[in-house]
Parts: sequence; structure tokens; C-alpha cells
Amino acid sequence: MEINIKLKSFSFSKLRGRGVWRYREAIPGKYDKIVTLNEGGTPLIKSRERGEVYYKFEGANPTGSFKDRGMTVAISSAVNTDHKVVVAASTGNTAASAAAYAARAGLKIFLLLPKGKVALGKLAQSVLYGATIIEVNGSFDVAMSSVMKIYKELGIVYPLNSFNPWRLEGQKTIAYEIVEDMGVPDAVIVPVGNAGNIYAIWKGFKELMEAGVIERVPRMIGVQAEGASPIANAIIKGLDKPEFVENPETIATAIRIGKPVNWMKAMKAIKESKGYAITVSDNEIMEAQKELARKEGIGAEPASASSLAGYDKLLREGFLDKGDKVALILTGHALKDPDAMLRQDKRMISLNPEEIERVILGEVSASR
Amino acid sequence: MEINIKLKSFSFSKLRGRGVWRYREAIPGKYDKIVTLNEGGTPLIKSRERGEVYYKFEGANPTGSFKDRGMTVAISSAVNTDHKVVVAASTGNTAASAAAYAARAGLKIFLLLPKGKVALGKLAQSVLYGATIIEVNGSFDVAMSSVMKIYKELGIVYPLNSFNPWRLEGQKTIAYEIVEDMGVPDAVIVPVGNAGNIYAIWKGFKELMEAGVIERVPRMIGVQAEGASPIANAIIKGLDKPEFVENPETIATAIRIGKPVNWMKAMKAIKESKGYAITVSDNEIMEAQKELARKEGIGAEPASASSLAGYDKLLREGFLDKGDKVALILTGHALKDPDAMLRQDKRMISLNPEEIERVILGEVSASR
Repeated sequence: MEINIKLKSFSFSKLRGRGVWRYREAIPGKYDKIVTLNEGGTPLIKSRERGEVYYKFEGANPTGSFKDRGMTVAISSAVNTDHKVVVAASTGNTAASAAAYAARAGLKIFLLLPKGKVALGKLAQSVLYGATIIEVNGSFDVAMSSVMKIYKELGIVYPLNSFNPWRLEGQKTIAYEIVEDMGVPDAVIVPVGNAGNIYAIWKGFKELMEAGVIERVPRMIGVQAEGASPIANAIIKGLDKPEFVENPETIATAIRIGKPVNWMKAMKAIKESKGYAITVSDNEIMEAQKELARKEGIGAEPASASSLAGYDKLLREGFLDKGDKVALILTGHALKDPDAMLRQDKRMISLNPEEIERVILGEVSASR
Repeated sequence: MEINIKLKSFSFSKLRGRGVWRYREAIPGKYDKIVTLNEGGTPLIKSRERGEVYYKFEGANPTGSFKDRGMTVAISSAVNTDHKVVVAASTGNTAASAAAYAARAGLKIFLLLPKGKVALGKLAQSVLYGATIIEVNGSFDVAMSSVMKIYKELGIVYPLNSFNPWRLEGQKTIAYEIVEDMGVPDAVIVPVGNAGNIYAIWKGFKELMEAGVIERVPRMIGVQAEGASPIANAIIKGLDKPEFVENPETIATAIRIGKPVNWMKAMKAIKESKGYAITVSDNEIMEAQKELARKEGIGAEPASASSLAGYDKLLREGFLDKGDKVALILTGHALKDPDAMLRQDKRMISLNPEEIERVILGEVSASR
């Protein structure tokens, strides 16, 4: 299902407020009640080191990922259509976000998580928000098929996965914010898991172009981890559809997905925008996470850092030039996955109070 | 040290941008270069259940706590005074924030953390950002004295704790944002650890009042955990100065501080604003964290939830009325402390894919 909207005499200068609902007139649907945590309006941070590179830091959303943008729209839609029970399969970020908005709306929620495959922070969030958590003995893709099945057979349960088009209507506001903050970049780089976000962002740009607000759409570039890259492989090999991956594997748990439900939309966004897709290794992802933190001061989870790993590879391969104006979508906060952070090299010493001054003085002198 | 500033013909309508540096003319100092991650501009979320209660969600800052507001000013100040090495004692949030901004500025940083007393997310952030971490065999207060000593004896090392007045100049922007978003509340409730924040926020309101922008200052109310409550006890008992706590203990690690360095400033803010201070138990804190998540959809760390626990107690004790317009400062993100989240009661089941539909159908039917 796709939702099409035609903006009428749209102008940024007329908008008020900030975040997702600033773009209310671009979000279809009637809402007597909006369930919001003031999501969106996230920082666009210019790189210190890389010229025209801008990081869109989605970790600053209320539950720490871009999922909140879609969830405010989807949960508002569920409430306005009088649903009482919602369900989502998740690698973790969708779960945390869905649980938060369901709690705020007073809805009952079931989360289907692949057992043992969810980063600690995300699982803990789902517990805190009081969701009923079903740990599925299987991958995310197995959990996802269960949601599809339940949705089709039990109409009473409202699905919160990104095949739900309202999710994408919220997520597209990333494009609106980018245009307001920096104009139209040459390219936008997006980590690709279940593959809704790259399409949603492209849709946002396209709507603005069709409304005459901007003159072109940026090239949409998808990044996948080597062990979970059905869409990137299809693009690289020039296939019409992806070969699904049965046992996806990567340290970037948020994009550990072998059968992306939105593959068709994602490939459309990439092709129509004359974009591209690329794979990066787990090692490249972890190095990119470290560089983002230690050079730029930005803490992003591994899946997010794949944007930067992808950018570097695209430079090396000549697909992007150093002068290109590029927006990198950092989809989630580093705090989502403490184990990944602790895997980076550490500089830790244990001291008694009376030793501290001597040690610091020694280190400061040595570094001069 | 205190910094005094007199605003000249200040008006919100003239300001541009968002976040801490929107209030540039209220932040003293000359900066050739500003080190920023677009901190501040956090959501003010209206309570679903409690009338005129508003949550200021500081967890949406780049490193997940209000500390980023002060750190952008303090690190910018360090850079503009040509310091190369910075140091901070921390229960965790200051560490994560200091490490991020030091990384962005290219400064060397030493963090002094009480060994075994720092929440997982915060320690992991400090590792990710590449700080040199000194685990001190002792409490936060012991680490804090070491910083004071190093600062006095080694002038070359720039201190990032909240006795550094530039930190407070950044933090006061919480008040500016509250006034822009909701006007002047009747009261502001602030968790109190090292006690700089309650003073900083009060200072912000006071500046706006002195500039004629607002007509009054809200009552400033400090909340401390029972096991670490020197300031609250002093206020309740009517003492002129606190009796320090040698071995502070509470589940809310961010405010596990027995000798708050800013006690004098905090007591001034509370007294001059006709405010109050209160203690809450660990159990009340954990219940408040759960309620915030499950009723409001907001994930805050335990120290933050003490604001809500304090609010409830102030209602019960008649210090606040239900109709009062109150801003609760939620200082840090729930993701900072995954262990605390996992301590809440869980609804988790492990299932094979073929069992899911039956279980959900059963639960949905039972709940009708």
C-alpha cells in the first residue's frame, strides 16, 4: 500500500512549531487526537573533518531512534480508528518506540523480538514501557512473517511495522527537515534494514519537488552490512529483485534483516533518484562508529555508523566526490547498544585517590 | 565564582535558531569558535494524566542528559582560552558529555569515575568517545576532591565540573526554553546531585525577570534520594548549611553525591525563590520511573524520575496544589541505565513461531 499526497501551495515560512507535526499539512489522515512525544526536529550536525558532510542525528528522538517519527503517526492513526491492541516485530528500535507510544496512548502492545538478537538498551526499553514481549525462537524475518499473518487473520490487531504506510508518512519528515536546514543535498545515505526509511525519505523529497518547493531530489544511497545485504546485492548486480538472505548476520543488529518487507519501495527510491547501494563489513562499521565518536563527538549505534562507512567506500570507489554535499542518516543512539560501545578499545586505569595527581601530571608531561 | 550578566533589551522574538546558542546574547564570554552538537531545544511534554504538569525531557540531548548544555559552553571556553587538557569527576553523565565535546574539540580528557558505581550506558559512552578513564577507588566525592586538587595545583588542566561557572551558563538555558514554551510555571522541580543545575535554572529565570521579560521567578524545588540528601535535609531542618553524607547510597546513581560542591548556590536558589527541598525513597523513584514510562511514554533514568516522585510527595504534603503549573526536569535518558530498566517487572514469554498467533488471540480475547 502506498499513500499519495499532493501538497497545495506549501511553504516552509508558513509552518509553526518543530518536529514531525510541524509538517502536519503533508501528513495525510484526520486526527481528532495526536499521540506525540515531540519527536523529530533532530540536529543536523556539520562534520568537523569532512567538508560538506552533514549528520542527521536521529538518536536525539525521544526513544533514541528515527522510529519515533513513524510511530507518532501510526499510533495516532490506530487511536483514531479505535484500535485497542497493537503488534510489531522488531530488531529492537521499533519495539522501544512502539512500546513508548502505545503506553502514551493506553493501548495494549505485543512485541515480537528475535530471541537473543536484540541490543540490551532496546530490550530494556521494551520492559520499562510495560509491553508484552514475545521472544521468538527464530530470526527477525520469522517474527515479521508472524506479524503479517496475525494482521491478516486477526483484523482487530493493528500492525506497527513499516509495511504500515502511516509509519513512512512520519519518517518522510526527515527529508522536510533536511531541506529546511541545508537545502537539497547531492546525496543522502541511509542504513537499510527492513528498507522503509530510504523510501520514506525519498518520498519526502519527491513531494517537495512536485510542489515546486525544491528543484531536484538527491541521490538516495542505501547501505547494508555484508552479512545482511539482499537489496545492496540486487542493486550492485543489476537484479530486478533481491535474493533474500536466510541467516542474516552482522554486529549492526538494527539492520540484521534478510527479507526486507519494503524491498520493492527501497529499490524504486534508489533507482528513480539515480542512487546506489553498497555493502560494508562489520569491521568497517565499528571503525566508523569509533571515528564518529572520537573525531566528531557523535555517539551512534553500529547500524547508524554504517552510513559513514558507506560514505568512505563511495568516495574510494569514485561514486561520490569530496566536494559533494551529503546528508548521512544516523538512525539511532549509541546508548541503544552498550555492548557495542564497550567493544571499542579502552583507555582505563584503576587508581587510589592519592595516585591520581601524579598519573595525570605524568601523562600531560609525556604528551607535550 | 559566579558570573553575572545583565541582559540589554532582550526579546525572544528577535532570537534565531534553537538550542543553547539561540540564547547567545545571554551567555557571557567571547568565542572565536563554538564547539557544539546542537544541544538543547529539548521537548517540553505535557502530562497525559496530571493536568498542568510539564516534563522537560533532557534525555533528548546529544549524549542523553542535560550536561550537554553546560559542556558546549565550558568546552568552547576551554578552546578559546587555549587549553589542551580537560578533566572531570563524574557519576557518569558529566563524563559522557565531557568526553563527547572534548572529542569534538580535539582535547585530551581524563575522567575520574567512582569504581563500580557508574551506570553501564554512561561508562560505555566514555569508552566509545576515547577518554582516558581513571576508576577511583572511592566515592564520587573522593573523585571530586581530586579534581579540585589537580585544578589548583596543575593550572594547565581545565576542569569540567559544575564549580566551573561556564557549565552553569549553558544549563541556565533550560529556564529560557521553559519560558518560551509555557511561560513562567508556579514551580520547577529539579533532581539535586552536585547541585549546580537547580541554581543554574533559577539564575536563568532571574535574569529574565531582571530584564523585564517575565514578572516573577518560579519556586525552585530540589529533590534528593533519601540516602544522599544533605541539601534536602538542611532545608527541611532549617539549617544554614548541609551536613555532608559520608557514604551516599541510592539506586539513582546520577545523584549519589554526599558532598555537593554547589550546595551554597543551590540553597540560595531554593531560599530566594521561596522554594523547598524534599527526599524520596529508592522505591518511590523506581515506581515513578515506571509510571513515567507506562502512563506518559517517557523513558527517563532513575535520578530524573525522582522529580515525579517528589511532585507526588509535595502534593500529598500540601506544598503543591493539583492546579499548580509545574515543570519537572527529567535530567537524563532511561537508556543511560539499562540495568535499572530491567529491574522493573517484566511481561516476557518465549515462543516458537507457530504458537504466536494462538497466544496473542488468547490474550486479546481474555482482555475484552
